[in-house]
Amino acid sequence: MKQINIALLGMGRIGKIHFKNIEQHFSGAKIIAVADPQLSKNFFEKQYSHIFFSTDPNEVMAQPDVDAILICTPTSTHADLIEKAIANRKNIFCEKPMDLSLERTAALSEMAEEAGVKLMLGFNRRFDPDFMEARKSVKEGKIGDVQIVKITSRDPGLPPIDYIKNSGGLFMDMAIHDFDMARYIMGKEVTEVFAKGLAVIDKAVADAGDIDTALTTLIFEDGTYAVIDNSRKAAYGYDQRLEIFGNGGMIQVDNNLHNKNILYNESGIHHALPLDFFMDRYAKSYMKEMELFIDALINNKEMPVGGHDGLQATMIAFAAKLSVEENRPVKLSEINVTIKQLA
Amino acid sequence: MKQINIALLGMGRIGKIHFKNIEQHFSGAKIIAVADPQLSKNFFEKQYSHIFFSTDPNEVMAQPDVDAILICTPTSTHADLIEKAIANRKNIFCEKPMDLSLERTAALSEMAEEAGVKLMLGFNRRFDPDFMEARKSVKEGKIGDVQIVKITSRDPGLPPIDYIKNSGGLFMDMAIHDFDMARYIMGKEVTEVFAKGLAVIDKAVADAGDIDTALTTLIFEDGTYAVIDNSRKAAYGYDQRLEIFGNGGMIQVDNNLHNKNILYNESGIHHALPLDFFMDRYAKSYMKEMELFIDALINNKEMPVGGHDGLQATMIAFAAKLSVEENRPVKLSEINVTIKQLA
Amino acid sequence: MKQINIALLGMGRIGKIHFKNIEQHFSGAKIIAVADPQLSKNFFEKQYSHIFFSTDPNEVMAQPDVDAILICTPTSTHADLIEKAIANRKNIFCEKPMDLSLERTAALSEMAEEAGVKLMLGFNRRFDPDFMEARKSVKEGKIGDVQIVKITSRDPGLPPIDYIKNSGGLFMDMAIHDFDMARYIMGKEVTEVFAKGLAVIDKAVADAGDIDTALTTLIFEDGTYAVIDNSRKAAYGYDQRLEIFGNGGMIQVDNNLHNKNILYNESGIHHALPLDFFMDRYAKSYMKEMELFIDALINNKEMPVGGHDGLQATMIAFAAKLSVEENRPVKLSEINVTIKQLA
Amino acid sequence: MKQINIALLGMGRIGKIHFKNIEQHFSGAKIIAVADPQLSKNFFEKQYSHIFFSTDPNEVMAQPDVDAILICTPTSTHADLIEKAIANRKNIFCEKPMDLSLERTAALSEMAEEAGVKLMLGFNRRFDPDFMEARKSVKEGKIGDVQIVKITSRDPGLPPIDYIKNSGGLFMDMAIHDFDMARYIMGKEVTEVFAKGLAVIDKAVADAGDIDTALTTLIFEDGTYAVIDNSRKAAYGYDQRLEIFGNGGMIQVDNNLHNKNILYNESGIHHALPLDFFMDRYAKSYMKEMELFIDALINNKEMPVGGHDGLQATMIAFAAKLSVEENRPVKLSEINVTIKQLA
Repeated sequence: MKQINIALLGMGRIGKIHFKNIEQHFSGAKIIAVADPQLSKNFFEKQYSHIFFSTDPNEVMAQPDVDAILICTPTSTHADLIEKAIANRKNIFCEKPMDLSLERTAALSEMAEEAGVKLMLGFNRRFDPDFMEARKSVKEGKIGDVQIVKITSRDPGLPPIDYIKNSGGLFMDMAIHDFDMARYIMGKEVTEVFAKGLAVIDKAVADAGDIDTALTTLIFEDGTYAVIDNSRKAAYGYDQRLEIFGNGGMIQVDNNLHNKNILYNESGIHHALPLDFFMDRYAKSYMKEMELFIDALINNKEMPVGGHDGLQATMIAFAAKLSVEENRPVKLSEINVTIKQLA
Repeated sequence: MKQINIALLGMGRIGKIHFKNIEQHFSGAKIIAVADPQLSKNFFEKQYSHIFFSTDPNEVMAQPDVDAILICTPTSTHADLIEKAIANRKNIFCEKPMDLSLERTAALSEMAEEAGVKLMLGFNRRFDPDFMEARKSVKEGKIGDVQIVKITSRDPGLPPIDYIKNSGGLFMDMAIHDFDMARYIMGKEVTEVFAKGLAVIDKAVADAGDIDTALTTLIFEDGTYAVIDNSRKAAYGYDQRLEIFGNGGMIQVDNNLHNKNILYNESGIHHALPLDFFMDRYAKSYMKEMELFIDALINNKEMPVGGHDGLQATMIAFAAKLSVEENRPVKLSEINVTIKQLA
Repeated sequence: MKQINIALLGMGRIGKIHFKNIEQHFSGAKIIAVADPQLSKNFFEKQYSHIFFSTDPNEVMAQPDVDAILICTPTSTHADLIEKAIANRKNIFCEKPMDLSLERTAALSEMAEEAGVKLMLGFNRRFDPDFMEARKSVKEGKIGDVQIVKITSRDPGLPPIDYIKNSGGLFMDMAIHDFDMARYIMGKEVTEVFAKGLAVIDKAVADAGDIDTALTTLIFEDGTYAVIDNSRKAAYGYDQRLEIFGNGGMIQVDNNLHNKNILYNESGIHHALPLDFFMDRYAKSYMKEMELFIDALINNKEMPVGGHDGLQATMIAFAAKLSVEENRPVKLSEINVTIKQLA
Repeated sequence: MKQINIALLGMGRIGKIHFKNIEQHFSGAKIIAVADPQLSKNFFEKQYSHIFFSTDPNEVMAQPDVDAILICTPTSTHADLIEKAIANRKNIFCEKPMDLSLERTAALSEMAEEAGVKLMLGFNRRFDPDFMEARKSVKEGKIGDVQIVKITSRDPGLPPIDYIKNSGGLFMDMAIHDFDMARYIMGKEVTEVFAKGLAVIDKAVADAGDIDTALTTLIFEDGTYAVIDNSRKAAYGYDQRLEIFGNGGMIQVDNNLHNKNILYNESGIHHALPLDFFMDRYAKSYMKEMELFIDALINNKEMPVGGHDGLQATMIAFAAKLSVEENRPVKLSEINVTIKQLA
């Protein structure tokens, strides 16, 4: 069996997850090079003497035996790195989003396809076992024709305001995962968006020009819809739930809790809180997405989530933002026109 | 203690519930007269010799010792009967809605107030013990400031198409309960509505000019919102759930199931279905609303839900319908203008 | 349809429940006489002028048009009243137990049968809708052949020590319901008992010669078994659960909670506590048992739970007590021998 | 930090789990030698060239740089291997039980202690995160003084009859885990055992002289108790639950299900089945026990579960067997006497 040689760019929070997962769990892939401008070469190579290290991603990407690039660097660097990887004809796994701008997202998606380079985007939640099971049930017709998808997606706390300022806003940074999830579950394209947004958690969010709370209605091509409820801060922690209603029934996916223990005492019957945040909640989905990325490379399969998906989710995020600003439903075709005008 | 003498108009499905509840459970009130054009006087009086009966509501309403009128007749007769009850200076309990037209609803509400006649509307779900508990928790600040209310309200099956044709449409007939619930939980007024509607259950519904599936976003005066998801037919039965999210936490009210039994077998872990329909699901709320109506009469209290509430819910229903038709958010002030123009 | 005329003896806590249920819910039966030595004739007749009242049960029982006697007086009076009712050829509903002594229980059971008087015992839990549903599922074979029944039965608090002293002990007073439940679910007879008992809640219980905590294993005629876990005091309230395991699956019956609301906050996910005590928890079963008693009288059916059941449950209670005292499994045949010797 | 060198004996189902866990997750430990009489040296060394391999455990155990031995071979070989490991002064992790005979179990436990060799037994369920959390809550006093522990432990299917014949019987082979769990949760010693056993799943089990279903009551030194309900075959799969009741409340640990998805359809509300069997259900506990074993070696701590625990659980198993045979409660002191007589 072919062995996939991987170069990992960015050893931050998410980079470390992929690093560890590949090192420990996939015999079909090996990390042979790492780049991170923040790390010391000496320090890294002392720990991992078998891995080539550089602070410069270009140097790592140029290694001839590298088959695939994992882009886990800050969002602002994604587009350039994707371009370079395409130029080097390396396959790519990139954390979402490809870029904060619409036209560049569209261009990158097209570029990768034309170059015949495989591109997978880190919409990891698709690979959560519970959500995969839900999608599988939908495909198998267990609830008939889907009429509505409801997503609850709340973070456990506000990120730092500086983070928010550079995040592209709640829709691009946070809700984009849910937009992708709605498309994934439905297996259809979104055509129209209506969104309401509020800054009710912290005034500083409004001052930064963003919102911290949103309600988004997505209309699909056949008129059915999804509704997504986002908050940057749930007092009880990370809330990630899904409900799918069809003419044959309903599927609910509830939160993953810290444990299965139930405490009964004088004040009530108490369950544990949901898992803290995405690192814990989606630990299995990070593993699974890497497994599928490597599998697609080894067996020359189509990537399970690619540039088209990234572009669609980004377009929805732009439409949602515009909808809040103008208080009206926004068609995705309007956004498409924008892209073409920009291009 | 004063005894309240009640005249009941209409011994249909809902009239019978109130009749039985008053006869069996409230020592402070007595049904002394009943009118129903469909029943035989002989037949009725054989069973209930102590109750005056007539096929003509006017005759019943004119009885001098009647303190309060319960209007449980078809919707099309409500407005006239309310007017007559006001003219006779009787207090009124009327099943929702007061009328299908906006201007008459507004007029009746005003008329009752000016006449000093007490008027309670049958938004019985407010008096469901679980929802009352939820409202109580919100008022006590258990989840802090409420940011979003989510209501799931699905019927177990499509009513006959003839019923639909005379129902005023999904928003007036079905969702109006949920509009009232959202206002009740929030304790605030709605200012804007955005709704999407579909006819996906049966083509006959579309042919009748109605929808069978809807998603409604309500915007409250302070910018917070509610989202209501309606379907005329859930394969698994009557689905009535509520979720309230605030900056201090969340309250969920789940369905009431047929029983607490759980069956484990080779194919899974199985719970019973929700209670069949409103007669079962809201049995306790019908009792409670009558208790509160009688209590308000005996102790001269304000009615827990009155003409203003009926008018607001009706205005929301009109706004929702307009929103679907014009695919845009509709302000309640637009509807208000309409009323004034009509008046 | 025949109308059943009922005389009710004892208007205490449980007597009032039956009184109210019959008055409000059963058109086929009427309470025509009441006896209670603690009540004033004047006071009672002012409220219920249509009901004959006496402080002397004999007087009430002698009324010729009385069809059935409801015995809701203290346990110590049950046996004499049953005997008198039999002598008067009245059908009998008696709260459990018939008597604290084994031989008299046996004698009464036999006496009623010989006299052809119908006798129903107030093992009301059999008529709880959830437990009835569980029994129905077992009978329908939904979990195959039952191998073990597990009952959790915990009270919300210790009764007064004076009550305990006259109660016949935990097994006779409290666990007897569970012994009957195990027999009911299994549809088989118990042949052997092993029990462990503790007084760990309050030393005063031990001083009164009783236990407050017990674990009882019942062996059925075919070798399968039930295990019952009793406590006089659960910090979280009244705990009434059932689990039935068969070769085809398992049925669980969970507690009935105060409401369906779930509160999520920083400290966890919180459900309401179970319903407070038997008056609330078994409200429906009191109704159902009376419905079935009246139905058996009207339609001349066999009583759903009778003298034989009372005797069996009492024998199990005696065996359990002996088992704790002698720390050994006790066969019911040993208890049977005792009865015969006593007789 | 010290690196622990491990020799693994037996690469069967359980050996492979430990092998993989150590290779992938623990930087502080390394497997440097493996013995398995069933494997080919060539085959093994092709895959793992850095690990010494032999079909003879003695050869592996004699390696001077081996710090600890993992015994994952068939039960019948455990005792000899433990003795040899002690002779070689290697620390030991041994899958339960140490031996099927009581006296040898006692002797081995003593031998290890005298030799100052660390010995950990594979009672892995203690290290399940949910059960650890439950034990932690008990220790923290969250439910006050514990009065009863209830364990439900059912396998998904009967093992082959040949396995049963050499298993030592249900109590030694299966329930021993639950006996250890009860001691772990309680933090106290068992003094008396009463058990009932049945062969109701397959007649072949009875023919093999074993039972397939059991109910065991354990009495602790202070009179409180545990009850354990075992079955070799639950139709719905692997059932592993725990309930702990104290004077301050109750803790329940429910099953781990395949997923969090809930399907609502016409026939009910359906949850997924429990995880298939111990390999899945206790995946995390195998990891955690190895982590704690390695940690105890590196930091010279006491083993979290050792020879004393193995001996106690074995004595309980013997007492349970005797109790079934003689239908009486059996004191552990009787078993102790037996050991001393045998010794």
